[in-house]
Amino acid sequence: MMGKKDWKAKAKALKSALKALRGSVTPAASGAAPAKAAKTVSPLAPAQFPNLPLIKGAEFAAIGAGIKYQNRKDVMLVRLAPGTAIAGAFTRSTTRSGCVRDCQTKLATRVPEGAGAAIIVNSGNSNAFTGAVGDKAVAAVTGGVAEALGLPTSRVFSSSTGVIGEPLPFERITTVISTLASQLSEAAIQGAAEAIMTTDTFPKGAAAVVEGDGGPIHISGIAKGSGMIAPDMATMLVYIFTDAKISATNLQKMLSRHVDATFNSITVDSDTSTSDTLLVAATGQSNAAEVKGPVAKAFEAALRGVMMNLAHQVVRDGEGATKFVEVRVTGAASDVDAHKVALSIANSPLVKTAIAGQDPNWGRIVAAIGKSGAEADRDRLAIRFGEILVAEKGWRHPDYKEEDGANYMLNPELLIHVDMGLGKASRSVWTCDLTSQYISINADYRS
Amino acid sequence: MMGKKDWKAKAKALKSALKALRGSVTPAASGAAPAKAAKTVSPLAPAQFPNLPLIKGAEFAAIGAGIKYQNRKDVMLVRLAPGTAIAGAFTRSTTRSGCVRDCQTKLATRVPEGAGAAIIVNSGNSNAFTGAVGDKAVAAVTGGVAEALGLPTSRVFSSSTGVIGEPLPFERITTVISTLASQLSEAAIQGAAEAIMTTDTFPKGAAAVVEGDGGPIHISGIAKGSGMIAPDMATMLVYIFTDAKISATNLQKMLSRHVDATFNSITVDSDTSTSDTLLVAATGQSNAAEVKGPVAKAFEAALRGVMMNLAHQVVRDGEGATKFVEVRVTGAASDVDAHKVALSIANSPLVKTAIAGQDPNWGRIVAAIGKSGAEADRDRLAIRFGEILVAEKGWRHPDYKEEDGANYMLNPELLIHVDMGLGKASRSVWTCDLTSQYISINADYRS
Repeated sequence: MMGKKDWKAKAKALKSALKALRGSVTPAASGAAPAKAAKTVSPLAPAQFPNLPLIKGAEFAAIGAGIKYQNRKDVMLVRLAPGTAIAGAFTRSTTRSGCVRDCQTKLATRVPEGAGAAIIVNSGNSNAFTGAVGDKAVAAVTGGVAEALGLPTSRVFSSSTGVIGEPLPFERITTVISTLASQLSEAAIQGAAEAIMTTDTFPKGAAAVVEGDGGPIHISGIAKGSGMIAPDMATMLVYIFTDAKISATNLQKMLSRHVDATFNSITVDSDTSTSDTLLVAATGQSNAAEVKGPVAKAFEAALRGVMMNLAHQVVRDGEGATKFVEVRVTGAASDVDAHKVALSIANSPLVKTAIAGQDPNWGRIVAAIGKSGAEADRDRLAIRFGEILVAEKGWRHPDYKEEDGANYMLNPELLIHVDMGLGKASRSVWTCDLTSQYISINADYRS
Repeated sequence: MMGKKDWKAKAKALKSALKALRGSVTPAASGAAPAKAAKTVSPLAPAQFPNLPLIKGAEFAAIGAGIKYQNRKDVMLVRLAPGTAIAGAFTRSTTRSGCVRDCQTKLATRVPEGAGAAIIVNSGNSNAFTGAVGDKAVAAVTGGVAEALGLPTSRVFSSSTGVIGEPLPFERITTVISTLASQLSEAAIQGAAEAIMTTDTFPKGAAAVVEGDGGPIHISGIAKGSGMIAPDMATMLVYIFTDAKISATNLQKMLSRHVDATFNSITVDSDTSTSDTLLVAATGQSNAAEVKGPVAKAFEAALRGVMMNLAHQVVRDGEGATKFVEVRVTGAASDVDAHKVALSIANSPLVKTAIAGQDPNWGRIVAAIGKSGAEADRDRLAIRFGEILVAEKGWRHPDYKEEDGANYMLNPELLIHVDMGLGKASRSVWTCDLTSQYISINADYRS
């Protein structure tokens, strides 16, 4: 039977056909109704971009360079004051992009005495699988920034996001560097968040303030990501800034401890990107003393919170998403098993389409558990929708009513809770539903 | 906000406006084909159900028992003559169904002297994750068949396919057993193929004839499967019958040798079923002598051919499919790596949606290779669409033209060929595209 969505889609398709026939419309618009809808903001988006605290020593600028998109910002530049410590995490894809490889090399390089740093990012083209020409583009862009800002090239990090396999028109970036450099400002972070968007429907920001020794320490982060989201050791593009005084080594340790439970625990479509990049920069310009002891604990917790918040926003902007779903697995035999089961459920197209249809089809959760490769005993499993006990002891719970499940599925935020009944390990993974809108966005992405 | 009714009304109004403007137009042309198409036959279906040779000693009957569907056959029975050898392969899901577990136990049991066998299958309910009640249902159904046909229960195999987690209304099956038993006929195999369909849009059959020692040996097989297709060591429901004289041990060996390259090399949606079952039954009633020597070779090749043919038909009936795609990986460092890369591409939602949109988006193939976990060297990869060389040496080939790729993607049957440039291992995986129709089918499946 056709549901509301189908009728809505049908109405839309008919409307464009009608428009096309009447002659009042361009060919692009006539078949492009779904692609157009991609630009409306995700129903799961936060009400507004948060008011991010300024980070002393971190200045931003953004501009439209026409890389692929017209009439929008697509390049952003960050200048980081001398003494800034930088940590990072990246995709493990064997086909990762030139800028990812370049960042990895530079992070492993000794920092020149008193050097500042910079980050330059473009959207619209990922410069991945572009061979030696791609590497040249990275050198040209980071070299251009180094020259404009008087930095060693080894301290200029870059990211590119967008279509894979197309040569990056890097001159469009190098041309705008001096303009960007002249517009740098600590207050311009929202523009930077907007410039890194691709199929994102809203810019993503999150912040925290920690009481340091002698003054507050601020953390402000931005992210992009909407499709090709199944991070492996890092994620999409994420940039977090803080004025904390902290060494790069300590910053890296903190970052690495929380990447797994935050960015590596989200999935939109099980497709790992070639460009995943997470950079955290600490300018050390807070009035607070060096981060250590209880302040280090509080700072680490706050950093983790910002990471988690940004990770969740990426899922909330999952391509075509209408539901934000936590898959929580408890009672697993091991951490690895808990993560396997949670990911297997969160990546199952059948579970995700059932959620899109608001169908409490828990049988598909059973199937996803079964295929996960994790230890499982059918008769010890318990499955819950939120607080509703759906199944246990190898069968549907006698008190479970389909209507209760169906009502629960109407919520925009859902919890699928699987207890394996085997051990004490637990993990959560966050995902979204799989809708026709995802197909429309991705069948049309390049055209 | 507009509800379903409003959208429906709007769609109607728009449709008549469109008709009026066009004069006369079919729904297909209006843009509304996808939503309606759920019940129309897959565009990738064979022209017709093949003329399967009769298998002496294998008799079929099918009936509508109203398990879930109305007005269609949903239970089928096969009687196999005394002396029939049976081999099987099953899902490895840890949440596999009661009938799968029952089949596995029975195949491991010594065959009583001179016993025949039977297979009973229902669609509409998979009897999976139904606990002890589910096991009782299996016992009731197989016991009923054993009684009606005068067989030991240990020689009655059963399968159930459909919704997971709903108690099977098994009395509806036991009630029709005597009618089924009275209608058994060697000629009724097509009805059996129809009775096991769920979201399938066409019944699937394949056959082969091998010249044996003293007469022809026949093989006739049927299958069902359309969604939840990512077999692990077996597949959906497949039943293959032959009149060959062959021991169960030899039959099992042949079967096991080819399951990996046939049924375990297809994927529609990466979701492994709880009910995957493949049974091969050899009645031994051909006039030909026992299968051995060169005949064994020919028979094994023919059996593999029937298995491959049925596996491909399942992909051709992939839910919402409009393209049949072979992903061929050559030059891999190992067999395991070749299979990993092929599956990673074939299961990538981004690759599959690009194919649906007829977009030669080879960058997504690069990303899928990168995330596969297999050894890969960006600069040694070569990617081809059919014979068209798209990329090599870490970059798009200079002679590749986007129009050539775009034209190639218009074909209903596609070959994506990745050469890893590392070793000699190769594997193929077959899949289909991911369309909005898949979403519609699976968001509405239970409602």
